[in-house]
Amino acid sequence: MILNGYNEALVESIKGWLREDVGSGDISTQATIAPGEQSTGIIHAKDEGIIAGMPIAGLVFEIVDPSLIFTPKVQDGDKVSKGTILAIVEGSTHSILTGERLALNLMQRLSGIATRTRTYVDALEGLPARLVDTRKTTPGHRMLEKYAVRTGGGHNHRFGLYDAVMIKDNHIKGAGGIAQAVSRARAQIPHTMTIEVETENLQQVEEALAAGADIIMLDNMPNELMREAVKRIKAAAPHVSVEASGNVNLQTIRSIAETGVDLISVGRLTYSFENLDISLDLNAKKER
Amino acid sequence: MILNGYNEALVESIKGWLREDVGSGDISTQATIAPGEQSTGIIHAKDEGIIAGMPIAGLVFEIVDPSLIFTPKVQDGDKVSKGTILAIVEGSTHSILTGERLALNLMQRLSGIATRTRTYVDALEGLPARLVDTRKTTPGHRMLEKYAVRTGGGHNHRFGLYDAVMIKDNHIKGAGGIAQAVSRARAQIPHTMTIEVETENLQQVEEALAAGADIIMLDNMPNELMREAVKRIKAAAPHVSVEASGNVNLQTIRSIAETGVDLISVGRLTYSFENLDISLDLNAKKER
Amino acid sequence: MILNGYNEALVESIKGWLREDVGSGDISTQATIAPGEQSTGIIHAKDEGIIAGMPIAGLVFEIVDPSLIFTPKVQDGDKVSKGTILAIVEGSTHSILTGERLALNLMQRLSGIATRTRTYVDALEGLPARLVDTRKTTPGHRMLEKYAVRTGGGHNHRFGLYDAVMIKDNHIKGAGGIAQAVSRARAQIPHTMTIEVETENLQQVEEALAAGADIIMLDNMPNELMREAVKRIKAAAPHVSVEASGNVNLQTIRSIAETGVDLISVGRLTYSFENLDISLDLNAKKER
Amino acid sequence: MILNGYNEALVESIKGWLREDVGSGDISTQATIAPGEQSTGIIHAKDEGIIAGMPIAGLVFEIVDPSLIFTPKVQDGDKVSKGTILAIVEGSTHSILTGERLALNLMQRLSGIATRTRTYVDALEGLPARLVDTRKTTPGHRMLEKYAVRTGGGHNHRFGLYDAVMIKDNHIKGAGGIAQAVSRARAQIPHTMTIEVETENLQQVEEALAAGADIIMLDNMPNELMREAVKRIKAAAPHVSVEASGNVNLQTIRSIAETGVDLISVGRLTYSFENLDISLDLNAKKER
Amino acid sequence: MILNGYNEALVESIKGWLREDVGSGDISTQATIAPGEQSTGIIHAKDEGIIAGMPIAGLVFEIVDPSLIFTPKVQDGDKVSKGTILAIVEGSTHSILTGERLALNLMQRLSGIATRTRTYVDALEGLPARLVDTRKTTPGHRMLEKYAVRTGGGHNHRFGLYDAVMIKDNHIKGAGGIAQAVSRARAQIPHTMTIEVETENLQQVEEALAAGADIIMLDNMPNELMREAVKRIKAAAPHVSVEASGNVNLQTIRSIAETGVDLISVGRLTYSFENLDISLDLNAKKER
Amino acid sequence: MILNGYNEALVESIKGWLREDVGSGDISTQATIAPGEQSTGIIHAKDEGIIAGMPIAGLVFEIVDPSLIFTPKVQDGDKVSKGTILAIVEGSTHSILTGERLALNLMQRLSGIATRTRTYVDALEGLPARLVDTRKTTPGHRMLEKYAVRTGGGHNHRFGLYDAVMIKDNHIKGAGGIAQAVSRARAQIPHTMTIEVETENLQQVEEALAAGADIIMLDNMPNELMREAVKRIKAAAPHVSVEASGNVNLQTIRSIAETGVDLISVGRLTYSFENLDISLDLNAKKER
Repeated sequence: MILNGYNEALVESIKGWLREDVGSGDISTQATIAPGEQSTGIIHAKDEGIIAGMPIAGLVFEIVDPSLIFTPKVQDGDKVSKGTILAIVEGSTHSILTGERLALNLMQRLSGIATRTRTYVDALEGLPARLVDTRKTTPGHRMLEKYAVRTGGGHNHRFGLYDAVMIKDNHIKGAGGIAQAVSRARAQIPHTMTIEVETENLQQVEEALAAGADIIMLDNMPNELMREAVKRIKAAAPHVSVEASGNVNLQTIRSIAETGVDLISVGRLTYSFENLDISLDLNAKKER
Repeated sequence: MILNGYNEALVESIKGWLREDVGSGDISTQATIAPGEQSTGIIHAKDEGIIAGMPIAGLVFEIVDPSLIFTPKVQDGDKVSKGTILAIVEGSTHSILTGERLALNLMQRLSGIATRTRTYVDALEGLPARLVDTRKTTPGHRMLEKYAVRTGGGHNHRFGLYDAVMIKDNHIKGAGGIAQAVSRARAQIPHTMTIEVETENLQQVEEALAAGADIIMLDNMPNELMREAVKRIKAAAPHVSVEASGNVNLQTIRSIAETGVDLISVGRLTYSFENLDISLDLNAKKER
Repeated sequence: MILNGYNEALVESIKGWLREDVGSGDISTQATIAPGEQSTGIIHAKDEGIIAGMPIAGLVFEIVDPSLIFTPKVQDGDKVSKGTILAIVEGSTHSILTGERLALNLMQRLSGIATRTRTYVDALEGLPARLVDTRKTTPGHRMLEKYAVRTGGGHNHRFGLYDAVMIKDNHIKGAGGIAQAVSRARAQIPHTMTIEVETENLQQVEEALAAGADIIMLDNMPNELMREAVKRIKAAAPHVSVEASGNVNLQTIRSIAETGVDLISVGRLTYSFENLDISLDLNAKKER
Repeated sequence: MILNGYNEALVESIKGWLREDVGSGDISTQATIAPGEQSTGIIHAKDEGIIAGMPIAGLVFEIVDPSLIFTPKVQDGDKVSKGTILAIVEGSTHSILTGERLALNLMQRLSGIATRTRTYVDALEGLPARLVDTRKTTPGHRMLEKYAVRTGGGHNHRFGLYDAVMIKDNHIKGAGGIAQAVSRARAQIPHTMTIEVETENLQQVEEALAAGADIIMLDNMPNELMREAVKRIKAAAPHVSVEASGNVNLQTIRSIAETGVDLISVGRLTYSFENLDISLDLNAKKER
Repeated sequence: MILNGYNEALVESIKGWLREDVGSGDISTQATIAPGEQSTGIIHAKDEGIIAGMPIAGLVFEIVDPSLIFTPKVQDGDKVSKGTILAIVEGSTHSILTGERLALNLMQRLSGIATRTRTYVDALEGLPARLVDTRKTTPGHRMLEKYAVRTGGGHNHRFGLYDAVMIKDNHIKGAGGIAQAVSRARAQIPHTMTIEVETENLQQVEEALAAGADIIMLDNMPNELMREAVKRIKAAAPHVSVEASGNVNLQTIRSIAETGVDLISVGRLTYSFENLDISLDLNAKKER
Repeated sequence: MILNGYNEALVESIKGWLREDVGSGDISTQATIAPGEQSTGIIHAKDEGIIAGMPIAGLVFEIVDPSLIFTPKVQDGDKVSKGTILAIVEGSTHSILTGERLALNLMQRLSGIATRTRTYVDALEGLPARLVDTRKTTPGHRMLEKYAVRTGGGHNHRFGLYDAVMIKDNHIKGAGGIAQAVSRARAQIPHTMTIEVETENLQQVEEALAAGADIIMLDNMPNELMREAVKRIKAAAPHVSVEASGNVNLQTIRSIAETGVDLISVGRLTYSFENLDISLDLNAKKER
């Protein structure tokens, strides 16, 4: 839900991030490189992985200098190997150097997320369960990081506190029970919004079902318990989705999926990560 | 250079990050918890590490709701163990839940950086070399992440492209040599700014010395070469600082420091990391 | 989803609206009234209706001058008659006069919407159908106007293009059919989001049902056709909601509801309206 | 005073209004329509009225996507009938659908105001009195709504609290009389600004005249009293303008104008209204 | 029209100016002075002059740190001599030092303008002519500088291009004559706005009079010609104001005023100036 | 460090300054000049001086209207005489008139600073001392004014409180001595930052030297004392720079430079000044 439409908020973010790095000016470049000098920058992968963020890197260079020409050589979602050329950027050496750090930084981060996401998705191959992310994203980067998860083959959970109801322990206590919490929420939200209830045992699962939850999350349950919960939910209300959450890693994810849950959420897709190493080589040519 | 003075830019960032998560409102909380309900939130560590970001978490809660009372129980830079209570936040349950995710998110990220920094600093114990960070920070978080590095016992490199000259390969080519690059830069920058030159071999080291560089970076050199470079630099110009860069990890850092360099820069302090696990427990009390 | 939590976006809107009216200063007041003069302003209804916007009026006065004391005498949702005192605002005459126009303006608009909404809601009395609004709101006022609809007893449809899928004629054509449109959307959206399909005849209703739509909108259908559509939908998928849309007015709404639809959307709740007349009387007292 | 010059504030408003509706993206369109699809949108009137807002609609589409081509077929101020084609917009289907709602929304609102204004202006035909608006405009839309009033043939009163002095009851009380209020204001304001005094009876009219008011408002006076007031004012100071205010409607406006007043202000031009119904039809063509 | 009411725009300006100076932090102070240290700063004049900007300095300190206590000892408009204490600011040493430069900077600039304005006003003593400023102000400081002119005893001309019509040579050419220019403008502007015409000879004065100008500017005319122009204007239309412009200095201003003009505009009040020298002495006390 | 790279902050400033002057529109131009009218504006000097700000004037016109063509005829740093044509701006008469005042205003201010700077630089001819500016700049204009100083041949001191340490009297007192102040600062700042110490006598000079200051400022010292200080500093630490400050004017600057100091700072380069007189003549042509 970004990059394919009106992206004014992303443009404002990029401007702010450039301001953070460039501040009153890139004095090293200004002092040493002639203003009219032209270059070609070649962006290539230094490791194997899934690429995400090509159009964002292009947007960074466009914001720095609309006369730069950015030509992608791969597409978001492509698997690349060490040495693959990802994109070419041509134009003013000053402008390329000014945008370089931020463009690479974003590509590295997003590709790192997409790459990790893909390993989890691969682990689910052949099974119907969806891998989903969480709200544990980097402040200011949520939309981009959720885009990277989709690029890696995952799916998104809600975008924030505003677009779906998630009833957790504190809300259940506050409302005086699952039934009350769900019915109060249903009365207030648009009919286009859904209600997910976090449960810790089968009794809560039954309560959530009875209350009419649209999605039921099984929090930190053992696989057998999850299998039983899925069975009961699907028997009673086939359209209700079931989400597994907690202690998911590459070793456990497949067996969790085999319990029959529809969704498996993994916080670590976005809250800790390894960058995919990407760099830019510059071939200066004295033109203009 | 943050949190101890005028922090308007940080306040604006936090407002933007809250807007990202909260959007048009935390509908789950609004639907289920009575507006006047009061709670006490206890923030505690779920792992061992160095804490950074206490005043920032406090600022998040203050921005969400100035009537919340945030009481730190440890200070930034303290080493904590699993279970240590870090802070108490008291007041409106709504407000605590609204600020919770962002406050924890920032504390976890910054404490993760401080914790990793400390392991590197510990590896240098007894040696005079300074551990420094790089510009490879998360877009929009540079000042906070550099603060976390300082909190962990590290030091900062330049803040951006604007506050020091760093002459790299492209600049040397652009200017036609190290001598020209340094002299052009010196002519343009304030006398309060310094010039660092990136070198790859002893000949470039000699050129940088002759050109009057204030700091000389030894990029990806073997330790022996670094030792020789340090010897020559200190003999010729004792006030010039020497920075080692490239391929630094916990295994190699001590031997690098023993070459006599003044500074060792480590990009991975900020560009990939593990959060320190921190959580908030809520004890609701029906008051007000 | 506003006013009961973190409202930074609303605060920014109010500041912008004050800037629009006050600009470089209220010169009439500054020239004629002594800076220290204190007053009590009494806000009262000049007509009968449902009040909405009390906390927003309070926020306007607080932003203009935090030392003003605003005391509501009724609550949002209350029915008032001509002459009912709605609130008292006390403090600096300058500040009261500066905020007066905007505060009244917002109360009048929102109360006008709540009042009209209530007449529609009353027409549905005893029937299960929900009255919902649309996206045809005043630019910059959507969240407030949707709040006023809720205050009047109505419910909200989606908040914007971002929080639910609504598949209309153009989307169906673009995707090559209802089935393709729904399946493509389902693959991309979070599991927390729903898909509504706009239909014009029973064949489309069947297609939407088969495609797994969460909500089916019956657009401009005669009541009999709607009755039949509802019957088929509820028989096949009881959890699917049915929305009636088009040509709804106070004369027709009850008979539409009697077809068994779950939701009736009415654009005119927000896109054209009569203000509820509200005014402020000032009793100056020379204090301070 | 908008649209024909530097319009940065309007551009910022439109960006904010788009953000309100589009948020993180138009997911229905993104999921169902191919990115490269091209269309032609035909904007036409569904009712008879005076058009206002053509260049604003064009600006909306340009901000959404500078590659869209917007071709107006009528001009602001033109009278159109049901079915008249108002404009053509060509280009990316995604972009047209993203901007559609806001562009139509603004055109409908402004044309609604222009249409109502024209009916009042027509009622004054042949008489010299000017129809003027008030400050009772929609927050955030004042400049646009005042533009629509001018488009309909009306004139503007002051733009806000900052650009003219309007001495009302509270100011007179505060200053201790009309004479003091006017003389204090005159001493402080630029000589390019004018002072209007609100009067309720002939004695106040005489005081305002004696005080040197530039404009005298007759507030809620019966026509006969107004006639007498006009006579006295024009005899004493022919350059002083006279404004009638209060209880003006289509039935009363002509007889009020016949009292000889120069100006008649009507709040209802902007504070309550009927949209002019306008819609956009899309003809998709699979190009690109 | 500032400081005595709602000043959000001024607050935003001050925040931006602080950001310019303080940036990521006052590192000298942070490194050398303990966070809890308290001080008293004494602001005193180092030269004789008219003070302007006391409340603005107070606002700067309040924005930096709301716990600072700022106590003015003189009022704007007061004449002070070398050594006069202007204000006391008490509280955190860090905060005082952070705000010091900006607060003094603004006071010095505004007091410099007020002081120069007063010398011009004094030169007009006993004559009815008003001294007025121009639009030749410092970008971003217009409202403050016009406030300083008022503080020094002068008056303001229009605030910008938006609040009064000033018909100059280019406009006359563009419209095809003074008569056309005035009548076109009159038809478009609110009745609360005035029209000033710039004239260079008596023929243009006559044209402006005939066209119904509200104010006639005599541009660079010799005193005798101005005397004649004033005579003709006042005979024909006593309520029309006459402004002298061009080549006004302290030697010529009195004789210009004696020609009978109502207004004399002087660009040099704001476009070039001498600061009034003001400084802050700090007495640190180790408290807290 | 501006204008030769990414200048988003400058663009935002210019937009704000245009808003200040143009507000809701240039009503004089809109009322009198046909929208399509084209003109050529010739910008020429009305006095002799050094030009600074050509690209900034170009940027102002581009922001007002990207279709304007701005052609510089001289370059920043050129010496011009009365009558020299500086630039031509062609295009819409409306747009030229809207941008005129701000463009000229900035050019006049910056050229005034460059011109004054050049007279100081000329007074130092043949001597190695650098002329530097201070932080006493106009709020909101620091980067531009520092650019003008460079254009005039001067150099810049630090940009703000954030990019270099300047230890003054208050900091020395706060830290308990020069040694402590310097060592505390050194421990906290990046190795790329420098420390300057302000001294008032030879003892402080010796302390600063011993503490390892990078730059030593001699504040208000007589020339003989400065000569002695320079001698001692250069003997002990040849790489330490020496700055003279206080009571510098055109009469004294050369003899100060002859004491051997490296830097002479002059606040009056920016805190009080005379504009260089520049104006724009318009030749309208009825085209389009």
